[in-house]
Amino acid sequence: MAIRRNRISVIGSGFTGATTALMLAQKELGDIVLVDIPNMEDPTKGKALDMAEAAPVQGFDANIKGTANYEDTKDSDLVIITAGIARKPGMSRDDLVNTNAKIMKTVAKDIVKYSPETTIIVLSNPVDAMTYTAFKESGLPKERVIGQSGVLDTARFCTFVAEELNLSVKDITGFVLGGHGDDMVPLIRYSYAGGIPLEKLISKDRLDAIVERTRKGGGEIVGLLGNGSAYYAPAASLTAMAEAILKDQRRVLPSIAYLEGEYGYSDIYLGVPTVIGGKGIEEIIELDLTKEEKAALDKSADSVKKVLDILE
Amino acid sequence: MAIRRNRISVIGSGFTGATTALMLAQKELGDIVLVDIPNMEDPTKGKALDMAEAAPVQGFDANIKGTANYEDTKDSDLVIITAGIARKPGMSRDDLVNTNAKIMKTVAKDIVKYSPETTIIVLSNPVDAMTYTAFKESGLPKERVIGQSGVLDTARFCTFVAEELNLSVKDITGFVLGGHGDDMVPLIRYSYAGGIPLEKLISKDRLDAIVERTRKGGGEIVGLLGNGSAYYAPAASLTAMAEAILKDQRRVLPSIAYLEGEYGYSDIYLGVPTVIGGKGIEEIIELDLTKEEKAALDKSADSVKKVLDILE
Amino acid sequence: MAIRRNRISVIGSGFTGATTALMLAQKELGDIVLVDIPNMEDPTKGKALDMAEAAPVQGFDANIKGTANYEDTKDSDLVIITAGIARKPGMSRDDLVNTNAKIMKTVAKDIVKYSPETTIIVLSNPVDAMTYTAFKESGLPKERVIGQSGVLDTARFCTFVAEELNLSVKDITGFVLGGHGDDMVPLIRYSYAGGIPLEKLISKDRLDAIVERTRKGGGEIVGLLGNGSAYYAPAASLTAMAEAILKDQRRVLPSIAYLEGEYGYSDIYLGVPTVIGGKGIEEIIELDLTKEEKAALDKSADSVKKVLDILE
Amino acid sequence: MAIRRNRISVIGSGFTGATTALMLAQKELGDIVLVDIPNMEDPTKGKALDMAEAAPVQGFDANIKGTANYEDTKDSDLVIITAGIARKPGMSRDDLVNTNAKIMKTVAKDIVKYSPETTIIVLSNPVDAMTYTAFKESGLPKERVIGQSGVLDTARFCTFVAEELNLSVKDITGFVLGGHGDDMVPLIRYSYAGGIPLEKLISKDRLDAIVERTRKGGGEIVGLLGNGSAYYAPAASLTAMAEAILKDQRRVLPSIAYLEGEYGYSDIYLGVPTVIGGKGIEEIIELDLTKEEKAALDKSADSVKKVLDILE
Repeated sequence: MAIRRNRISVIGSGFTGATTALMLAQKELGDIVLVDIPNMEDPTKGKALDMAEAAPVQGFDANIKGTANYEDTKDSDLVIITAGIARKPGMSRDDLVNTNAKIMKTVAKDIVKYSPETTIIVLSNPVDAMTYTAFKESGLPKERVIGQSGVLDTARFCTFVAEELNLSVKDITGFVLGGHGDDMVPLIRYSYAGGIPLEKLISKDRLDAIVERTRKGGGEIVGLLGNGSAYYAPAASLTAMAEAILKDQRRVLPSIAYLEGEYGYSDIYLGVPTVIGGKGIEEIIELDLTKEEKAALDKSADSVKKVLDILE
Repeated sequence: MAIRRNRISVIGSGFTGATTALMLAQKELGDIVLVDIPNMEDPTKGKALDMAEAAPVQGFDANIKGTANYEDTKDSDLVIITAGIARKPGMSRDDLVNTNAKIMKTVAKDIVKYSPETTIIVLSNPVDAMTYTAFKESGLPKERVIGQSGVLDTARFCTFVAEELNLSVKDITGFVLGGHGDDMVPLIRYSYAGGIPLEKLISKDRLDAIVERTRKGGGEIVGLLGNGSAYYAPAASLTAMAEAILKDQRRVLPSIAYLEGEYGYSDIYLGVPTVIGGKGIEEIIELDLTKEEKAALDKSADSVKKVLDILE
Repeated sequence: MAIRRNRISVIGSGFTGATTALMLAQKELGDIVLVDIPNMEDPTKGKALDMAEAAPVQGFDANIKGTANYEDTKDSDLVIITAGIARKPGMSRDDLVNTNAKIMKTVAKDIVKYSPETTIIVLSNPVDAMTYTAFKESGLPKERVIGQSGVLDTARFCTFVAEELNLSVKDITGFVLGGHGDDMVPLIRYSYAGGIPLEKLISKDRLDAIVERTRKGGGEIVGLLGNGSAYYAPAASLTAMAEAILKDQRRVLPSIAYLEGEYGYSDIYLGVPTVIGGKGIEEIIELDLTKEEKAALDKSADSVKKVLDILE
Repeated sequence: MAIRRNRISVIGSGFTGATTALMLAQKELGDIVLVDIPNMEDPTKGKALDMAEAAPVQGFDANIKGTANYEDTKDSDLVIITAGIARKPGMSRDDLVNTNAKIMKTVAKDIVKYSPETTIIVLSNPVDAMTYTAFKESGLPKERVIGQSGVLDTARFCTFVAEELNLSVKDITGFVLGGHGDDMVPLIRYSYAGGIPLEKLISKDRLDAIVERTRKGGGEIVGLLGNGSAYYAPAASLTAMAEAILKDQRRVLPSIAYLEGEYGYSDIYLGVPTVIGGKGIEEIIELDLTKEEKAALDKSADSVKKVLDILE
């Protein structure tokens, strides 16, 4: 029985997609198929080739293929979707949602056509609604369609805390629930430095400021870059989720999961703590929430529902 | 005696500079200062922050700072220069050379002002002339000003060979002398797959095609991307050279070195095999060349001299 | 200014010392000098050579030297002491303490003779007393003489918790104070899986059993091996502490630190939460303890004092 | 379709087997089952547990189980056999061969009983004959039963060359054919430093001395250790071969392969250059040999045949 390398398809060859492909290859998690639309085929091939040429120097073994043809994704063990447009000036949120939902529908169908038993991680924005769309359109079981937002939010939070305390990021952990960005529900009481609750180490004012900065974390990068949005930390987050699945690690990671009664919500994709392993989302961890936390999570769920309502 | 983390400054926060910063940080080679000109300060800060936010997820410890202020580079153990403009349509080569030389002069002076005992690796184009400029302007000893081209050319060559033979890139080695791109002098007889000379494994026709593809390797990526040039493999190459220096590895790597009689050339920076370690270029390895190889290297040196003549 | 690789000396070439040397080399933290007494010189050289021969295959660059001559440790950036005998049948604890203290005195003097500004990590048993001895004998500042026990105790605790919950070890954190083994003071309320307090995930009975197993963790391995004691996890723990120092990471790690009033103790080495970085122990973190925790820590301190009293 | 972690069984929990298990786990190549005979069950469990306790600190995810029950090896993707006795004083070579062959027969049958489609790598001595025995007894296809000797011999050779030239081991490559140890056939003309043939860099005398030292490399370690034989470099070599298979890398590695006419030999396992990937030995590379090389290889093959003749 020959051993076959994993195949990972990354849909969307923009900065996030391309950086994700690089990070997956660096970790030798499998061969990479980087996919974009036909009129982006050449740049996609160019990025894939440039990355492949980094392999002899970085010492990783991975075939990296750029393509506009979904046939090349055949039998993918994992598919990561970063495709979608960014909101342009003058574009309404409804337009954004519907444009990206349309893209997601096509992508999801193209994926399952060639990889009917794959697992999908979604990054495209608005991510809760886009994960929902990918789930509905792909027909895959719920545990196999997963959205990313909490790993990134937590990473940002930890970065700010490590800087505040001048400690290694290796020893900071954070915990978030709910939606991405403004709707994020941070669980400060479950956030630590070296295991010590942050509330004992950082003043409430400073913690509030860090939480606020985390909420606006995506916007901070957008504001600085001037033209475009974050891609290094999002790509790292996708890669960590991919690794947890491909190495069947059963890691405890926040992810956007389909809820059927958990936390009191149903038929919605929402950010919750989960166990991620070879089967995808292997468990949803239900925590007791304080009244404030539950209220914040309700608000977050409402926001997601409002976006879902926009979907035609 | 407290141990202090290495400081590595990367000048130029374009794709190559930023990707280099990421790769240096991933390898925990030191803290990173990513520098660009004042009107690029915000995007530089944005990229640095985005990378820093990847650290908790990727598990690396490195401070990454974006700045337009050379004071932040103070006491750098290593400086990598990627700054410079790309040739624009209608721009003569002379204009390109002189514009970039002007940039290089300023950069070199700013670097040594704050890090008078550092080592510099240059990537800016045309790289032989720009390394020469950095050497003259910085006043650093010759072994501490090094240009990159051969590591990248070799990486591309190895990628194409690995694909041709369907073998791991880990077991392919190549060998180039001379200038970058068209002036590259490949030493096929010193190029192997698993230690077996490539000439025994690949037909002359195919090998010629691979050499030609390697020569045009930068152009191939430019052509595909449509807008911009390669950055993943260049960044990986810079990172490998940086690692050899910062870990004092005494690796045998092709690099652009200042020659004082070696191979029959003087007062020129040219691609030759070198030993790279904690002192920078620790040795220049002189090989016996065939008549054809020497002729090709002469041609390469002539090209470099022509560019040097352009320098005002 | 040439860059020089770190030099790390490991005193004691038994299983723990040798495995530590391997792990340090694998991480390319520096060149390794593995030292033992003259009549162990040949086996020490043999292990060092065997390890060096693993380097081309594992891909690490590190000189590894086996020796019985302390001159070879000259200018060590870090010294790890694993030397000492194990308690033999019929040997009293006092005999063990005094024999190892004698060894420690010689070792400490030999070290500072050749590396007067180094940092020392002690593993030798009984570790609190041996770290105290190394501190007194070496004359090094207190922050530069550090004992290991909590990293290992925590690692064992996390292993058992990960197994209990069937989760990745990457997401389990534990927290211990006090002495090694029976005197260990676990802070369960600061121990988590994915940030969730273990008390919410594991029944009290099972947690108690896990704590008890951790306390007896060294003995469990001794019992299984039949002849010898644990070395893989101890070596990994030493390597993590070494990395935190050599890469100046400011990690939050439990370590055996010299107390001058912290937690109410003085002139004693005791396991406490610390910040470990390029200066050694950069901070001692003082936590509020519950009455039970303080009582347990008092008991732990008493045990240490009793051993110190044995020291002639 | 759930993703399942690879299972790797290591037969023999002596130093080599245990170190191999550690290195496989460090690379997260799969879950490890460390197997030994019933009266070694406890030490085997002890080593496995000690290693597992290193995981939280070293940051690897791998279940490591010690056992004396082959049922635990069920569905192994790869099995590494290190079992066998070392020659004891007064023991004839024939006795050694037959004792180890008997062990190998039992092991091979037990393996295929639970993993009928696995791949086997053999290290047990004398390795050519033991690989042959494992092949015959297991009934597995020839490409799935592989012996290790050349990776280790090459590693030793490279170590000595790197030391001689004071260069990074990363840039040294060697090439050996034939049997292990005295019967090793080094192909110096295919051995390089930074791609430069060693004959150009090292005098013939010194090269001869290095070759001779390599031939006696195992004995050198045995002599130094006094009690036991090498295990770090052998374990690293096994791990490299395992990685090539489990990651389907198609690496060019010397291995002990079953020959059916290649190099003029048949029905024999002999060290030859091979391509190792997901199918096991995917290719045997046939090189033109000089008269001297062919004579040396003949001698090597004769030695192997003589050992095969001993087999009852």
